[in-house]
Amino acid sequence: MKIDAVDLFYLSMPEVTDAADGSQDALLVRVAAGGHIGWGECEAAPLPSIAAFFCPKSHGVCRPISDSVLGHRLDGPDDIARISAMVGYNSMDLLQAPHMLSGIEMALWDLLGRRLSAPAWALLGYSASHGKRPYASLLFGDTPQETLERARAARRDGFGAVKFGWGPIGRGTVAADADQIMAAREGLGQDGDLMVDVGQIFGEDVEAAAARLPTLDAAGVLWLEEPFDAGALAAHAALAGRGARVRIAGGEAAHNYHMAQHLMDYGRIGFIQIDCGRIGGLGPAKRVADAAQARGITYVNHTFTSHLALSASLQPFAGLEADRICEYPAAPQQLALDITGDHIRPDAEGLIRAPEAPGLGLQVAASALRPYLVETEIRIGGQLIYRTPQL
Amino acid sequence: MKIDAVDLFYLSMPEVTDAADGSQDALLVRVAAGGHIGWGECEAAPLPSIAAFFCPKSHGVCRPISDSVLGHRLDGPDDIARISAMVGYNSMDLLQAPHMLSGIEMALWDLLGRRLSAPAWALLGYSASHGKRPYASLLFGDTPQETLERARAARRDGFGAVKFGWGPIGRGTVAADADQIMAAREGLGQDGDLMVDVGQIFGEDVEAAAARLPTLDAAGVLWLEEPFDAGALAAHAALAGRGARVRIAGGEAAHNYHMAQHLMDYGRIGFIQIDCGRIGGLGPAKRVADAAQARGITYVNHTFTSHLALSASLQPFAGLEADRICEYPAAPQQLALDITGDHIRPDAEGLIRAPEAPGLGLQVAASALRPYLVETEIRIGGQLIYRTPQL
Repeated sequence: MKIDAVDLFYLSMPEVTDAADGSQDALLVRVAAGGHIGWGECEAAPLPSIAAFFCPKSHGVCRPISDSVLGHRLDGPDDIARISAMVGYNSMDLLQAPHMLSGIEMALWDLLGRRLSAPAWALLGYSASHGKRPYASLLFGDTPQETLERARAARRDGFGAVKFGWGPIGRGTVAADADQIMAAREGLGQDGDLMVDVGQIFGEDVEAAAARLPTLDAAGVLWLEEPFDAGALAAHAALAGRGARVRIAGGEAAHNYHMAQHLMDYGRIGFIQIDCGRIGGLGPAKRVADAAQARGITYVNHTFTSHLALSASLQPFAGLEADRICEYPAAPQQLALDITGDHIRPDAEGLIRAPEAPGLGLQVAASALRPYLVETEIRIGGQLIYRTPQL
Repeated sequence: MKIDAVDLFYLSMPEVTDAADGSQDALLVRVAAGGHIGWGECEAAPLPSIAAFFCPKSHGVCRPISDSVLGHRLDGPDDIARISAMVGYNSMDLLQAPHMLSGIEMALWDLLGRRLSAPAWALLGYSASHGKRPYASLLFGDTPQETLERARAARRDGFGAVKFGWGPIGRGTVAADADQIMAAREGLGQDGDLMVDVGQIFGEDVEAAAARLPTLDAAGVLWLEEPFDAGALAAHAALAGRGARVRIAGGEAAHNYHMAQHLMDYGRIGFIQIDCGRIGGLGPAKRVADAAQARGITYVNHTFTSHLALSASLQPFAGLEADRICEYPAAPQQLALDITGDHIRPDAEGLIRAPEAPGLGLQVAASALRPYLVETEIRIGGQLIYRTPQL
């Protein structure tokens, strides 16, 4: 097959707020090759990503992504790796490239799986898709009471694992954070897995993060996520060396394999969290999963948006039976739910798994998405280089 | 002062080729505050960068850069750091952000310097702007003969230091590369500083790079630049440990302080090369220069484009007397030369230095640039969000 077309769709809720909620808009990717269709989703700012695909060339290694994708061969997984390597080299100086590539790469696995009647995880080399325990990914409330109620509601909804993130944590006192974290534990109950995500709030301040460790241990928190700037590897390692039971988690910002590897090797994290919509898709994510296995580090997906993104992010560790916990977008915006007609739901044991169906295993509900389309048009030197295509 | 306006200008040569020549287009930034004007230049793909400034918000930490710049206070260097930190946090998930911010941050130093009648290097804390030995940055010829002639021409033009890069190196045999490198040495003469840049051609293949070390030492090459993928820190360290005299150089792709720090601490490089048009501007570059000093690593600018970019890239190490070698765009496209009305030229001793004049110390030749303007227009939901402004 040759890649005949790549169509990009910018979708959005009518209103986008300042909440750290990545499901408020989406960049959906449709790839056509050999009469087949594949879908992917970038976890990325839509307009700069569209620009990265269609922009005029700046020089030999700052080329638009389209140059390394359109018209190229796609017959097997090696072709996906080859295309990704071409983008990596030809678009080396185009910073936005990995975020844009991610949705395309995902769509290539979806398309190839449909063509070969195999789920993406099988094409990645796994023999089975194992059940994972989904954790609800929630935002801290403005008050401990609100957090407590959110934790209780998640428990009622069947979640035995919950991650709270962002909101007021790290912005006030250590005591105020303790109240929030203890409220989360109380709402969840003593037997649930509790994780805390502070969204890089401590910058590079090891002491500020370390001041929260006693509470995190007292509340039996499994991991503390993104305490620091993603590049502050020495700060991560320093915090990991403070003797707390809670382990450090990170990796969502990794936009290539090496960034994840650095967090593991130099940052001494215990959980590596990969978003397939940012790291360049399933291929580099699988490489991270292999590296994590070799190091005894737990691989976890990072997914805050649609079930298409969820399926994609489950594929790279679908076959790792011991890496059992997974992120589940428990309260996304309606847009994220509407992207697929079918959804990945917990089974009778409360576990979810990457679908058995070919490719990413879900149907994109194209016509249902039309109300979310953000009509976009880019002209360069009077020439139309992008206009929202027909969905 | 409040930042009143940021105007972005996409400039290009009439034809852009596949050469690894970043001077074929430019994204020029004009900032206005308190009746003053400052100019900067992103070393970045123009269209995705423009999109990063003007795009609609995706969520709380994926906001357009404009949110953290327009209307904000600018009275001193601390304000520049504060604005950069805001962009870093508010645009955390917008991958293109650091490339776009770089040109703005540069313009803020230019503007602030003009307002305070001080060169940017003085505002950065240096007491003098020391002379640097410029090296001509040239592309390898297609044949050793062509390379030899380019080296001779550079010598004739007064350059005592030359860096050859890209072209055929690493794509053929070790012997073919040796012919090229020896031709460069022959053309330059025995007493000149010779550097070799291979533009990440070896990926992560330490043995392929190591096979070139004997030639590099035989030709007395000062540094081998970017042998590997910029994130392949372990490969850099492995090559640095092979006992060759030639040292490893890298860092041009660093889009934040930490990436540069990782190359120094984990990659064991001997020269750290920073492009102020990519790393986020002068502030983070100065932080790298300080860190390099503390480690005994030589700081070098990376500059392939205009003299505005050259001035910006000289500022962060202007006051480091011992870090004496600097990159000089010896054969840029006419566009790059036309960006400023005045230029940084070698003095009688063949040295260049960051200007003594306020800000970045050069005049942007706005009207001369109009023929290079690439008229660009972006519409979202029928609304015009960007159109090339009046230059």
